Amino acid sequence: MDVISVIRTKRDRGALTDEQIDWVIDAYTRGAVADEQMSALAMAILLNGMDRREIARWTAAMIASGERMDFSPASGITRPTADKHSTGGVGDKITLPLAPLVAACGAAVPQLSGRGLGHTGGTLDKLESIPGWRAALSNEEMLSVLGSTGAVICAAGDGLAPADKKLYALRDVTGTVEAIPLIASSIMSKKIAEGTGSLVLDVKVGTGAFMKTLEDARELAATMVGLGTDHGVRTVALLTDMSTPLGLTAGNALEVRESVEVLAGGGPADVVELTLALAREMLDAAGLPDTDPARALADGSAMDVWRRMISAQGGDPDAPLPTAREQHVVTAPATGVLTRLDAYGIGVAAWRLGAGRARKEDPVQSGAGIELHAKPGARVTAGQPLLTLHTDTPERFPYGLEALTGAYDIEPDGTAFTARGIVRERVA
Amino acid sequence: MDVISVIRTKRDRGALTDEQIDWVIDAYTRGAVADEQMSALAMAILLNGMDRREIARWTAAMIASGERMDFSPASGITRPTADKHSTGGVGDKITLPLAPLVAACGAAVPQLSGRGLGHTGGTLDKLESIPGWRAALSNEEMLSVLGSTGAVICAAGDGLAPADKKLYALRDVTGTVEAIPLIASSIMSKKIAEGTGSLVLDVKVGTGAFMKTLEDARELAATMVGLGTDHGVRTVALLTDMSTPLGLTAGNALEVRESVEVLAGGGPADVVELTLALAREMLDAAGLPDTDPARALADGSAMDVWRRMISAQGGDPDAPLPTAREQHVVTAPATGVLTRLDAYGIGVAAWRLGAGRARKEDPVQSGAGIELHAKPGARVTAGQPLLTLHTDTPERFPYGLEALTGAYDIEPDGTAFTARGIVRERVA
Repeated sequence: MDVISVIRTKRDRGALTDEQIDWVIDAYTRGAVADEQMSALAMAILLNGMDRREIARWTAAMIASGERMDFSPASGITRPTADKHSTGGVGDKITLPLAPLVAACGAAVPQLSGRGLGHTGGTLDKLESIPGWRAALSNEEMLSVLGSTGAVICAAGDGLAPADKKLYALRDVTGTVEAIPLIASSIMSKKIAEGTGSLVLDVKVGTGAFMKTLEDARELAATMVGLGTDHGVRTVALLTDMSTPLGLTAGNALEVRESVEVLAGGGPADVVELTLALAREMLDAAGLPDTDPARALADGSAMDVWRRMISAQGGDPDAPLPTAREQHVVTAPATGVLTRLDAYGIGVAAWRLGAGRARKEDPVQSGAGIELHAKPGARVTAGQPLLTLHTDTPERFPYGLEALTGAYDIEPDGTAFTARGIVRERVA
Repeated sequence: MDVISVIRTKRDRGALTDEQIDWVIDAYTRGAVADEQMSALAMAILLNGMDRREIARWTAAMIASGERMDFSPASGITRPTADKHSTGGVGDKITLPLAPLVAACGAAVPQLSGRGLGHTGGTLDKLESIPGWRAALSNEEMLSVLGSTGAVICAAGDGLAPADKKLYALRDVTGTVEAIPLIASSIMSKKIAEGTGSLVLDVKVGTGAFMKTLEDARELAATMVGLGTDHGVRTVALLTDMSTPLGLTAGNALEVRESVEVLAGGGPADVVELTLALAREMLDAAGLPDTDPARALADGSAMDVWRRMISAQGGDPDAPLPTAREQHVVTAPATGVLTRLDAYGIGVAAWRLGAGRARKEDPVQSGAGIELHAKPGARVTAGQPLLTLHTDTPERFPYGLEALTGAYDIEPDGTAFTARGIVRERVA
């Protein structure tokens, strides 16, 4: 087997054999295939595609590159496990209320999460704004938190799908991120290696998502559902709107605050709607279809799990959250109806203000981000606050404001409306 | 400017701007763009193509990455310069008789040549089988040999188009060699930087060539002629047959011997035919259309230039050529007409016997290679010698013989024929 023949096969629109896939993933993980060879192959895959068999084998080879976790009863976890993955969006804090909520309804929720890169935020970055909270747990600690509280949100260990880690870092610098077979296999290799029994995918679609069109989102969702099913994981996907930010905040501490509001029975309607929709899918997939997650929000049981889960990872759920040193208010330039508030523009602005990072090794600002004072459909009056920008580094305000240019429309003759449902389609 | 946006432009089927091309070639040469980024871009170019403007700019940027040579009268070279480039084939020793022949007819012929890689041989490897002959000359030595003999064949210095050197080595290991825009710009950047006034391209087509089809060869030829013309170099291309080896030898010393036969007024008909066809094109492009190269072969003047040229570079034109330690004869398995003798099979066999190298740093065997005792169209008798394999390392015979499996056809009921003309088309 040699790498050039593998590259040529895909370059010339052929299908890779199982042997070629197993060999190239293993050789790349070992360093016998060089980065410049793998990036050429990744570009050929991006442009020429892979069929279902190839994607399944590619995913299996990435799983086989590392260890697999076990949350079966043999591990001491007696509840059915349910996991969720979001493809990433702006203001997407859903994991924070969702994991304790689903645990409060009887499932075990092991959420191995990531950090933000680019304009979409990362769950771990958000939780790290809670004083004392630790993302890095040993496998034993993870099982202990999961067993005692029903939910755990932590960083994935280095041992899970190391081939994917290496390949993802390569794709990030070679313009080969946006390939559906590679996105699907990257997500699913980690999720399957994590060993969950069921999985609900939140596939974002819209300006603030990787998938800009419903058609692309459908293809990605179907590919991932197929992969999960082929590996014995009950998998469902919801395609959800990411044309406008979720909720009224984008940032780290700002989103924790909003999540706690949801757990307290309040919070923005769209965040509550999506949290409950995903919770119902997770409970259904985990074999617990008769529990009502709305009740667990109303009766405080989800909040109880949240507090125990945060405490178990060293965090103080009662500590005040950090706030940014400086604020800048953007006011409505006209009176009318806010008809558009673009997720991508808000995401880039929050990122530039310090909520996100440009490189993996950069720190993030806990307090930085953007608060929205109106959502599309709302009537606004000229001069009223529309957005508040938060940062510790006020020299970044001009860059944040630049990203907001053209990011919203106010129509003087518009009619106020209620936003359409956030769940666009379901793929199972 | 950032490299990911450049990669994305080509990935998404856009045209690269002049600024993007200038920047990426310069940044890659400096090391600011990494190999894994350039290989992803090369694959995107291979699959999505470049238009004429992009190829011209890409070529100009590679020329600008290094020094340019000068063979104008200011350099002391008063004759018109004529250069030839072959895209590489099996048994292609044409440069050896051609350069002294065209010099004997009044042109100056500066032939910066390369070494063999893979199944096609290299001119410098062939000449190095002459005892004492040196490929590496300083610019001053090169001008001195060219001025005193009219011809020089030597290695290109490191200063010419360093971007191409780096990119070629990368393409070689990433499955991105076979891209017409990249092949054309690679060849032409070096040839234009060499500063010749006219250039004749020998574009090989057939099983033993990079271009397997006439259509691909035409596209490559037209692209290169366009590039040369745009840079003020009078450029013509001949598309020539490479379905069967040129002449009766493939190897290093074996091909030198055959070249000297041609210079002595003999040699195989196809080698003489192609040498004269290319000589006429070179003389025409150099503004010397009235000289008859056939006369310079017949009267010994081409041989005189050869002897002076070899001596000027330290070689002894009268020294016996090295021969391989072992021979193995392949006999005709049947009586009939040899209807096919495949260039690729012969090329791979000669390479495996030691005439070529697998990696740039490998040595070659001067005596290794293959002699053909019959060419397609000839009548053969069962048991007569068909091929003689030469090597210093007889343990390689089985590998050489394996490459010859299926490489020739003998048809018992066939009718002997004379091979068609070797020049298929002319592109100007």
